Amino acid sequence: MSLDAVLARIDQTLPDATDRLLELLRIRSISTDPAFREDCQQAADWLVADLQSIGVEAEKRPTPGHPMVVAHAGPKDGTPHLLFYGHYDVQPVDPLHLWDRDPFDPAIEQTPAGPVIRGRGAADDKGQLMTFVEAFRAWKDVTGDWPCRITFFFEGEEESGSPSLVPFMEAHKDELRADFAMICDTGMFQSRTPGVTTMLRGMLGEELTITGPTKDLHSGMFGGIAMNPIRVLSRIIAELHDDQGRVTVPGFYDGVPELSDALEAQWQGLAFDHAGFLSDVGLSHPAGELNRTPLEMIWSRPTCEVNGIGGGYQGEGFKTVLPSQAHAKISFRLVGDQDPLAIRESFRTMVEGMLPPDCTVAWTGHGASRASGTATDDPAFGKCLKALTDEWQIPAAYIGCGGSIPIAGHFATILGTPPVLIGFGRDDDQIHSPNEKYDMESFHKGIRSWARILDALVTRPESKRVDQ
Amino acid sequence: MSLDAVLARIDQTLPDATDRLLELLRIRSISTDPAFREDCQQAADWLVADLQSIGVEAEKRPTPGHPMVVAHAGPKDGTPHLLFYGHYDVQPVDPLHLWDRDPFDPAIEQTPAGPVIRGRGAADDKGQLMTFVEAFRAWKDVTGDWPCRITFFFEGEEESGSPSLVPFMEAHKDELRADFAMICDTGMFQSRTPGVTTMLRGMLGEELTITGPTKDLHSGMFGGIAMNPIRVLSRIIAELHDDQGRVTVPGFYDGVPELSDALEAQWQGLAFDHAGFLSDVGLSHPAGELNRTPLEMIWSRPTCEVNGIGGGYQGEGFKTVLPSQAHAKISFRLVGDQDPLAIRESFRTMVEGMLPPDCTVAWTGHGASRASGTATDDPAFGKCLKALTDEWQIPAAYIGCGGSIPIAGHFATILGTPPVLIGFGRDDDQIHSPNEKYDMESFHKGIRSWARILDALVTRPESKRVDQ
Repeated sequence: MSLDAVLARIDQTLPDATDRLLELLRIRSISTDPAFREDCQQAADWLVADLQSIGVEAEKRPTPGHPMVVAHAGPKDGTPHLLFYGHYDVQPVDPLHLWDRDPFDPAIEQTPAGPVIRGRGAADDKGQLMTFVEAFRAWKDVTGDWPCRITFFFEGEEESGSPSLVPFMEAHKDELRADFAMICDTGMFQSRTPGVTTMLRGMLGEELTITGPTKDLHSGMFGGIAMNPIRVLSRIIAELHDDQGRVTVPGFYDGVPELSDALEAQWQGLAFDHAGFLSDVGLSHPAGELNRTPLEMIWSRPTCEVNGIGGGYQGEGFKTVLPSQAHAKISFRLVGDQDPLAIRESFRTMVEGMLPPDCTVAWTGHGASRASGTATDDPAFGKCLKALTDEWQIPAAYIGCGGSIPIAGHFATILGTPPVLIGFGRDDDQIHSPNEKYDMESFHKGIRSWARILDALVTRPESKRVDQ
Repeated sequence: MSLDAVLARIDQTLPDATDRLLELLRIRSISTDPAFREDCQQAADWLVADLQSIGVEAEKRPTPGHPMVVAHAGPKDGTPHLLFYGHYDVQPVDPLHLWDRDPFDPAIEQTPAGPVIRGRGAADDKGQLMTFVEAFRAWKDVTGDWPCRITFFFEGEEESGSPSLVPFMEAHKDELRADFAMICDTGMFQSRTPGVTTMLRGMLGEELTITGPTKDLHSGMFGGIAMNPIRVLSRIIAELHDDQGRVTVPGFYDGVPELSDALEAQWQGLAFDHAGFLSDVGLSHPAGELNRTPLEMIWSRPTCEVNGIGGGYQGEGFKTVLPSQAHAKISFRLVGDQDPLAIRESFRTMVEGMLPPDCTVAWTGHGASRASGTATDDPAFGKCLKALTDEWQIPAAYIGCGGSIPIAGHFATILGTPPVLIGFGRDDDQIHSPNEKYDMESFHKGIRSWARILDALVTRPESKRVDQ
């Protein structure tokens, strides 16, 4: 078989591939909101049917939450055995009024930077997971066969903390174990440089509700004398960082490694456009820890952010209420050996120690995952970099990622399968925000990249290797 | 005529009076939300029709906002000329899920403390304004005449800062000027002691929106490096009070008088049940300024409260967003000679000085009124206290009020008409909160109180005065 023929097939069928992606994007598979439970089922069904249409044995597997999709193809003794992971669930869409179109009525839009696929989930992660599905479709169409043993593994709870994932992996170790777990849920460096992500931060999510008076009060009657939970919560949030930008939770920096000289040198070589990174979102000053480089702040330093806050009257006009409750959602990004459960305990103890008399706090935990790093000794990593460089005509790099993809660590620890994180997202994709998009170039070259990677990883001496 | 006969008529017709109030309470006259504009018109129409039905010349008068109701009755040379003020608009009803019934489907409920009228506006202020309307109805029914020259003046914007009030009063000075302006929008001391409120705090309402990044961001990608407006807003709120509970806005305490020895002595005589006041709402510790008595904190000290805060993701589950904006509604209660406009300027300057680079603030002002105090030299005040004491069989007192009724000051400064604030609300009426109610006893004895006050104020030597 010829890689050229597969790449040509990908180019010819791009309109069909795009239509399929738009179909998947129309399904409202928001995992975090119970109102969309049926939509998540529908997204899983769609994937099962699509995989079956190209001859893959695909099944929807129930969990206590949203279902998994597990599918297999290719010879059982094929080498290597590659698992491909993606998630079909998407983030909530609010604030809806900031979208320029219905988030679930996706479309191809022409922009000054080229055509984009606009819609919720276009980049995170439906568009990305379809890159490898389409690569296999083209491979099968051209060769009539599979390049090696393949397992597809899609979940529907990634955006809500993946509660069913670990139990499912534990229960299906033998079925899911592979030589490599290819995860397509990351981005390119500075939007242009393809890469293999080898450093992922962990995450701890915490939700707290402070209660003061037993009911909402009139601030004229009770203001000044009754404790206001918004004030209590604000003081807690204000004290989460010191004036150096460091997180004040006791023990928070335990297990945070300093950057090695080698990695520091490599990162400096990437010539990160710090000013451009900030100016794209209307900012000009880094707001994090003092005396840290921007890449350190994003890739290798832990952070604490407030993701949401609410309390009292938020409607139009004014209401002189002194509310009974105020709540916040706070997340920590973790690196190195930071222990999420120890930090959760320390954080809660700290907050409880800051409560004035008459105030109580209620907690909801939202996921706790360690950071993960990948060793790149195996020659497969070099082959992937080479394939990416060939496709994008820009030297591919080992990069970090500020986000958290807990599954990467789970593949390593539960299955002993090394994760390989390759994705084609860009910094301006607005994932988790209104007007999410995925560049048509990312989709097209993403599919082509996987074809090249398959060709590089599959040891078939008789195959004609094509390098540009 | 006989006061006894009027009081007896009030007792006999209480069921009809209650039905009329329930009818008025069914009208959703939320003034702060434009969606209820027509309901406010409807409430004004209802009042006009009700006053006309007892022979009062009543009119709905347009304003740029919600209409006024102005009505007159009695001889133009009658002495005294009494104006009666109330407001037909009500507070918003959220959080709706905390109501035990539809806020606009009012009903009489039996409680351990006696029957109450439950519904939005029952106490603030529809139930209160109907006390004097019903007193006049009974008076007219029994005597066939009016006791003196009467003007009714109802507005529909009290809960949204009364933007049309001052221009309307300025334009209709001659029509509205009277010997006394009777305002029924206050409460009794400790729920049981009737009184004339002579100290009212002023109010300044401020709404601010902090903007950091131009759009919502992914906290994994931008957390730590991009400024989070929730953190900025929390720090501002946390620094609004020092560790003595004092407000930190520069110049805030300019014009705040110390309590006179005489007033302090009178207040101590009221034996305020501080512990009970707090424990009714689930609290045990006063949270305001150190070294101030509870009554001082509520009646004669200025305060700053946060009435609402919001930003980022507040829905179910978790969303790792770093929001573009965060907003808060903050109100200041003012006393003595504090200047609301000077405080607004100082507050805004202080906040703007606290903004880190890349953050901006947008402001909306929500009303600015000075505190007002009433001199009680005129013998009419003593007559009111006596009438209240007779009705409630508890010695009536001159009291303060933590809330703000800007109109009291406007009557004095614009019309030269001294305000007389008499109301029958109770501390547990839950005004501005879910499950607002007005005690049937307040409604019934309130109507009777006004009949006694009319009888006391109208100088008619031939009238048979009845004291219990």
